[in-house]
Amino acid sequence: MHILVTNDDGVQAPGLVALAQEMRKIATVTVFAPDRNWSASGHVKTLERPLRVHETTLVDGSSAFASDGAPSDCVALPLLGFVEKVDLVVSGINPFSNIGHDITYSGTVTAAMEAVISGVPGIAFSLASQDKPANIPADYGPAAQIARVIVERVIAEGLPKDTLLNVNIPYLSVEAVKGFVITRQGLRVYRDALDKRVDPRGRPYYWIGGEAPTGVNEEGTDVGALAEGYVSITPLQLDLTNYKAMDTLKKWVF
Amino acid sequence: MHILVTNDDGVQAPGLVALAQEMRKIATVTVFAPDRNWSASGHVKTLERPLRVHETTLVDGSSAFASDGAPSDCVALPLLGFVEKVDLVVSGINPFSNIGHDITYSGTVTAAMEAVISGVPGIAFSLASQDKPANIPADYGPAAQIARVIVERVIAEGLPKDTLLNVNIPYLSVEAVKGFVITRQGLRVYRDALDKRVDPRGRPYYWIGGEAPTGVNEEGTDVGALAEGYVSITPLQLDLTNYKAMDTLKKWVF
Repeated sequence: MHILVTNDDGVQAPGLVALAQEMRKIATVTVFAPDRNWSASGHVKTLERPLRVHETTLVDGSSAFASDGAPSDCVALPLLGFVEKVDLVVSGINPFSNIGHDITYSGTVTAAMEAVISGVPGIAFSLASQDKPANIPADYGPAAQIARVIVERVIAEGLPKDTLLNVNIPYLSVEAVKGFVITRQGLRVYRDALDKRVDPRGRPYYWIGGEAPTGVNEEGTDVGALAEGYVSITPLQLDLTNYKAMDTLKKWVF
Repeated sequence: MHILVTNDDGVQAPGLVALAQEMRKIATVTVFAPDRNWSASGHVKTLERPLRVHETTLVDGSSAFASDGAPSDCVALPLLGFVEKVDLVVSGINPFSNIGHDITYSGTVTAAMEAVISGVPGIAFSLASQDKPANIPADYGPAAQIARVIVERVIAEGLPKDTLLNVNIPYLSVEAVKGFVITRQGLRVYRDALDKRVDPRGRPYYWIGGEAPTGVNEEGTDVGALAEGYVSITPLQLDLTNYKAMDTLKKWVF
């Protein structure tokens, strides 16, 4: 079993190191990640320029590959042959949850998506560490242990075709976590606001401001499970077709 | 009716100008687009830096707003209040088709997605101009006329909730187009290959190379419709949950 560990926060992010350490307990691991932070970068494949890859050392002394490409490139390059054989791609651990519409912006999720497009199972791991006090560094240990439990399950059971897992882990100790729930994608409530300012030279500029997004704490959703202290496991597909809407649209006369 | 016209190719792209011209025949139009090309940039929302907006003039003498933000920002800023009231967001016309898995990479589609997340209907338009000889500039006229027909339909009928339309138009004259088909998302076949080279200083670098992607020409799909000369209209949703897989995963014991 050969597991590729990647992320969108950059190869030196603590969440990646914790995830790689746990994966090494159950498989051969290659770490291949961006050389810088690509958070909220979406799904990018670099075709207009060549990519560099260099070997680097992580804080725990282990070896990793870093590339100047985007998160998707860091999946594409290994799967196209840079690494001999990859059985599973795990992405993360993202420092913040990726729930509801977040997933359309998430580099962590798109890395897993790129794996599935290439025919290899993919899992995205995110930790709701936004719930901890901001002045304390996040402890990824419990989340990494939980990630290992899920990966062991995936190795044992396999994943349905063309499906990735989007896993969100509450910021709790392993003992305090209430359990694992299979969820559907919930609803985020964005509270963005336009913040117009004027620079020292009298010219306007604009921040996308406003408060942090909340979510609709509905039972059965990723948002709801996380709020209740459960690990949320959402199976995602690559087919975005709204099949119900097809019937409505087929009545249109052009 | 106030229509926002945007794209991911940059405000001066000919596909945007053609689309805006046709939209002006049926509605008040604001053009708000990135000041540079963001193709294959995915879904990015810029929160780490402020954004600039400047007024510019398009090749046809009309006025437009250009921002240094990403395509999603060029939807978010107007909808957050930069423009007073927007009823519909149209994105494009992208110079190449966005079919199958392309849509997870497409800035054109994510602009329409950002509109729907913000509660405004969105439509992405793409033209399969990769099918024309490379030495002839693309004519967006027929595609823009077809886009207008679809927008008129959407204004008359409305769109199902939380649904965007992904429209792909064959590179044909209006007369030669066979008609409009409501489709599901098809399958792309990517033929990427790792192309390792050595730079003048003896260091390796990597291109994501290989041949252009093909598609599975299945009936009822965007790929199939386009190959047959039809305009493909795919309703897309923001919920990526694989509901069938949920049942399988619920049997897992942790």
